[in-house]
Amino acid sequence: MIERRRASRSPLPVTVPGCLDRVRIVLVQPQTAGNIGATARAMKTMGLTRLVLVAPEAEPASAEARARAHGAEEVLDAAAIVPDLDAAVGEAHLLVGTTNRRRGRVLPDPTPAREAAAQIAAVAQTHEVAVLFGKEDAGLSTRELSRCQICATIPAARELPSLNLSHAVQVMAYEIFLAARGQVPRPAPDLANAAELAALYDRITRLMIAAGFEPHEEDPETFLVSLRRTLGRAALEKRDVRTLHCVLATLEGLKG
Amino acid sequence: MIERRRASRSPLPVTVPGCLDRVRIVLVQPQTAGNIGATARAMKTMGLTRLVLVAPEAEPASAEARARAHGAEEVLDAAAIVPDLDAAVGEAHLLVGTTNRRRGRVLPDPTPAREAAAQIAAVAQTHEVAVLFGKEDAGLSTRELSRCQICATIPAARELPSLNLSHAVQVMAYEIFLAARGQVPRPAPDLANAAELAALYDRITRLMIAAGFEPHEEDPETFLVSLRRTLGRAALEKRDVRTLHCVLATLEGLKG
Repeated sequence: MIERRRASRSPLPVTVPGCLDRVRIVLVQPQTAGNIGATARAMKTMGLTRLVLVAPEAEPASAEARARAHGAEEVLDAAAIVPDLDAAVGEAHLLVGTTNRRRGRVLPDPTPAREAAAQIAAVAQTHEVAVLFGKEDAGLSTRELSRCQICATIPAARELPSLNLSHAVQVMAYEIFLAARGQVPRPAPDLANAAELAALYDRITRLMIAAGFEPHEEDPETFLVSLRRTLGRAALEKRDVRTLHCVLATLEGLKG
Repeated sequence: MIERRRASRSPLPVTVPGCLDRVRIVLVQPQTAGNIGATARAMKTMGLTRLVLVAPEAEPASAEARARAHGAEEVLDAAAIVPDLDAAVGEAHLLVGTTNRRRGRVLPDPTPAREAAAQIAAVAQTHEVAVLFGKEDAGLSTRELSRCQICATIPAARELPSLNLSHAVQVMAYEIFLAARGQVPRPAPDLANAAELAALYDRITRLMIAAGFEPHEEDPETFLVSLRRTLGRAALEKRDVRTLHCVLATLEGLKG
């Protein structure tokens, strides 16, 4: 009931899974205002709204940050600014650190982003999750990563450069959003049925023959098979069939 | 043994699938230099290096663009600047348009990014692919999208804002990179290229008009868009195009 009432108030259907409210994005000592703003926007596109900034080295209220937030200013305005990591993650149950390092001597093996997102979405059904991103030039430290139950990494070409901070947030947020939505069925196309297709092919064939087309003697079906192969692969919808009938009706008029 | 020796020769093992060389990223009239630079970086992190700019409204050689490219300056420097979409996609076999629109009246249903990436990686095993991104404030036009065999969309929260341009490129590039890594080579269909398709549509249109077809006054492109949607989804092979030309040649004879 509550969900429905909320939805009816808004012209935009709420499609954001509720568990995303339990996921916070933590930027540790971000160094550029543009990245802070762009992170807010990247988050909001994927239904995430809780941004925490640990001892930011750039000004989240700057014009540059607001410009890059572009539509997600309220995420930026609501960002919590805290002095240290403890304050950022205190009551979270799952800490996920992001890194582009290979396996280290002491750290856990990095988990690919998609797999990490599945775990984040699962835990967020019931518990608080914090996803940590390090500063632009150095990433999270070994000490910071060692506090995390999961070290997540975004598969990427092994050559330089690394992903920009806000772009890394975008990819993680995208994976978390997809994982949280789970398998949501999408609207099926209104496919034409076999009888409608047969009628269409018949009409094309009749028109072709009326136009003087002579089927191949040894294999009169060749043309029709080619046509079915071509149009069949298109998985024609009812509206596509109507389009083609419109074409045919016009062309049949040529006979008159 | 071999793996170890290879690793020792190069500090950066090449892990980029070769098919990514056949994927170009096309920005149509990008409006901000920062996004052009950030796109170059986003591409390179995912092994993509071919950037094409169609009539850019911002300066790709500006300091802002170079700063945001940060490590991918050579992708930026090598970007092709072309006057129109034809020049950008001419010899490509698969055109993929990105959009955040819902299903339209005439356009194909958008394909989720992950599914589109799988198709891109499959085709790129043997053929050229162009992935198109529209300008920041308006995206690709209906006319531009109608030229694409696939309309791809990044699943996102339905509320504003939309993804920033370079962030959208990052997500698509990430999905393409993952799909390419997982791709098993398979025999490629002999796909028609963009120029062959354009010639086919032209011929159909000319025939329709010769037959008395009157385009919708308010929206003369509607018919062509519908037709492209229908045939575009079929991923027409060269032999399919020959079949359709055979149909057209026969029907053109009706005029005599």
